[in-house]
Amino acid sequence: MLDQIRIVLVNTTHSGNIGAAARAMKNMGVTQLVLVDPIAEIDGDAIVRASGAAEILDSCIIVSSLDEAVAGCGLVIGTSARGRHIPWPLCTPRECGTKAKQAVANSNSVALVFGRESRGLTNEELHKCNAHVHIPTNPDFSSLNIAAAVQVLCYEMRMSALEGESAEVEQKSANSWGVEWDYEMAPHSDMERFFDHLKDSLVDIGFLDPNTPKQLMTRLRRMFQRTALDKMEVSMMRGILAAVQRKAKVANDVDKNNESGKK
Amino acid sequence: MLDQIRIVLVNTTHSGNIGAAARAMKNMGVTQLVLVDPIAEIDGDAIVRASGAAEILDSCIIVSSLDEAVAGCGLVIGTSARGRHIPWPLCTPRECGTKAKQAVANSNSVALVFGRESRGLTNEELHKCNAHVHIPTNPDFSSLNIAAAVQVLCYEMRMSALEGESAEVEQKSANSWGVEWDYEMAPHSDMERFFDHLKDSLVDIGFLDPNTPKQLMTRLRRMFQRTALDKMEVSMMRGILAAVQRKAKVANDVDKNNESGKK
Repeated sequence: MLDQIRIVLVNTTHSGNIGAAARAMKNMGVTQLVLVDPIAEIDGDAIVRASGAAEILDSCIIVSSLDEAVAGCGLVIGTSARGRHIPWPLCTPRECGTKAKQAVANSNSVALVFGRESRGLTNEELHKCNAHVHIPTNPDFSSLNIAAAVQVLCYEMRMSALEGESAEVEQKSANSWGVEWDYEMAPHSDMERFFDHLKDSLVDIGFLDPNTPKQLMTRLRRMFQRTALDKMEVSMMRGILAAVQRKAKVANDVDKNNESGKK
Repeated sequence: MLDQIRIVLVNTTHSGNIGAAARAMKNMGVTQLVLVDPIAEIDGDAIVRASGAAEILDSCIIVSSLDEAVAGCGLVIGTSARGRHIPWPLCTPRECGTKAKQAVANSNSVALVFGRESRGLTNEELHKCNAHVHIPTNPDFSSLNIAAAVQVLCYEMRMSALEGESAEVEQKSANSWGVEWDYEMAPHSDMERFFDHLKDSLVDIGFLDPNTPKQLMTRLRRMFQRTALDKMEVSMMRGILAAVQRKAKVANDVDKNNESGKK
């Protein structure tokens, strides 16, 4: 399981934190580190704090966007403080371990996404996630060091991986609801293409005004992300959207002709 | 419970680790720090790494022996790597949380004892403990940073303290993820009306042939049912379907006119 877990750090400011995160990962047997547009460099401070986990820094991947970082992942979980504007499926670190295990048993890769030291993940980044995880901190002092957060989540990943190692076989084809499933979960990149297609279609039918989008796409993202669509469902939905767009094109052409007729 | 937990650090070498341990403690709501004969001083580095938890450093107690540090505690648990010479009662961090909770419920104070960065606790120190706790690390890279170890154990203390508390919380407006939600879940009858509307719309756009429906509606039902739509989401989806139907009507009228034109 642990070799399918990807730790994604977004815009990390302190190199020491990257090193300490690498150490926490290796201690727990998690090895894939992806840095999204890091502010800090992997310098001597990072290597000192990695303390023997420098190989994780050596093999880490640096990308420029969150989409690239989580491409191909069937389950993307973002770390979040409580109290976001629109509630999102939220799990504890322990539940996160269970969900990750189920996802990996169903041949999915999992990304755990950690935000900036100063202000975490943006809403836009959080809305790309299937679910959020909240580490239950002291409400009076809730800002965890990022390496400490990586430590807690990697610990729960490891606990989940170790738990009933023998029972692993049973879980062969379960989705993130723990249900036996017939199709693989759709990877993140398929979901992003689906959301683009959905948005275009909503514009075509005149339901979404791209100039005043309000919260429509956010609410639709939340809805479909928490469903954890499988590949078959995404292709079905995209078939429906293509059919909608064909009708919308004919109807919109009629409108255009009527307008030019009026002139 | 958390106010009865004492974190004891023995002969700590790096002041930054003391600071980071204080931060990890405060994040998890644990406040009593005891230093046994520390090598490091509480200097600027400790305060920087404590990052807002300096009050824990201010109020920490410095003693010269482990005996003094754990005086009065009903349960003393020492952190240990595996494979000590003489087997000792050994628990996982999670079991440690349970044991601590039971001890506090019986009016005991609890000490969690952490050893030196370089070589942990001595056998003599470990033998002063009621039990040992082993954080299940990667066997190839088992040396946890001391603040990371404090983080994991304080996290389990907090999880144990919160457990049961959460059961008292009303599930007032929780969805199937057990998350507080902004809208009420849609009742069954709303869902059935939505599925009727969805089916009609799919027929209108020519995606569903009512004579050979296959499994399309079954798959869509499964998908939306497991999402557990809220009322807002159902009304949003029905708004979209209505917009789709308006476009489809115009487009289908064009088709009809074309056909009658051909006749």
